[in-house]
Amino acid sequence: MTIFSQEVRIKTKDHIELVNITSKVNEIVKKSGISDGSVLIYSPHTTSAIIINEPEYRLEDDIVTTLKKLVPKGAGYKHDRIDNNAHSHIQASLIGASETIPLIKGNLYLGSWQAIFFAEFDGPRTRTVLVQILS
Amino acid sequence: MTIFSQEVRIKTKDHIELVNITSKVNEIVKKSGISDGSVLIYSPHTTSAIIINEPEYRLEDDIVTTLKKLVPKGAGYKHDRIDNNAHSHIQASLIGASETIPLIKGNLYLGSWQAIFFAEFDGPRTRTVLVQILS
Amino acid sequence: MTIFSQEVRIKTKDHIELVNITSKVNEIVKKSGISDGSVLIYSPHTTSAIIINEPEYRLEDDIVTTLKKLVPKGAGYKHDRIDNNAHSHIQASLIGASETIPLIKGNLYLGSWQAIFFAEFDGPRTRTVLVQILS
Repeated sequence: MTIFSQEVRIKTKDHIELVNITSKVNEIVKKSGISDGSVLIYSPHTTSAIIINEPEYRLEDDIVTTLKKLVPKGAGYKHDRIDNNAHSHIQASLIGASETIPLIKGNLYLGSWQAIFFAEFDGPRTRTVLVQILS
Repeated sequence: MTIFSQEVRIKTKDHIELVNITSKVNEIVKKSGISDGSVLIYSPHTTSAIIINEPEYRLEDDIVTTLKKLVPKGAGYKHDRIDNNAHSHIQASLIGASETIPLIKGNLYLGSWQAIFFAEFDGPRTRTVLVQILS
Repeated sequence: MTIFSQEVRIKTKDHIELVNITSKVNEIVKKSGISDGSVLIYSPHTTSAIIINEPEYRLEDDIVTTLKKLVPKGAGYKHDRIDNNAHSHIQASLIGASETIPLIKGNLYLGSWQAIFFAEFDGPRTRTVLVQILS
């Protein structure tokens, strides 16, 4: 098996925000020279996640707003006694730390409307994501 | 590494619905002739997802009903100004575009009560799912 | 490709509970002797899931409490007519049956604050999780 791994650095600007990293993942796929396999995009943080959906700024805002409603900041969480970000951890747990995308003939098997987002839930911060291609 | 990929076509009937695709995935596993590895089931759409749970029609209805309650249609989403399906995108984001299942000695490592569902959140439509086996 | 798979047995104590299984996964990684690849942690149950987040007891309680609020027990579910645990199935569906973690130079690519949890949603029970390493 061939394995190609590379980290992506991301600077987020807001407390909660979706950052489109599709082009960065595509660059790594090209650089790897691998044509078929699977691509794991992994966030090694506990207050961020990976989402695949449509890159439309109103929708990105809707996703963020819905997560804020479902898991509101400061809703009496016990973890907030030591660190004021329980909501960020819980939002990250709901979405999940990674996504895996098939790689077919040199291209990510993304649908026409799909993009890969780094989901920041406790920014702004400098973050790292690992892209790992197995072939 | 051996890679075997095949698309599955699915016709959904309702706006929101779970479609049991376990037997279709099993057929592809058999056809591949691969005995050990992992099986990625990937939805290339932004308003559908993959869920693993029990194939019991009342429960399938409960899952759908709960997702409708958590992310109701038409709750003032900005994306609805251009396309009336923000709720579908957000439901898909919460569940996730794929699931990965171990393949052991020719069998999917599914528990006794587990089935693989294609989750439609903006049907009825004709959809595609990719099953990719890595070995 | 090299594949190494091993089951982990877990005894849960509460109805809903997070059990930190990071050290058990690390033991399996060491035992495998594999240095690079990916590690799939898979729950073959329909009322449990895998979560990656921070091992802090207050936060673990917050995650559990939030899932209970979002998907409360006995909220008129149809599945409860035959088995009193629809909430457990729905909570499991929201979180997902597995997580995949990159393996780099013999170490799981977990962030400083990340741990791997088995999420029990219908305990107490004896459960099994499969750890599968692809390399």
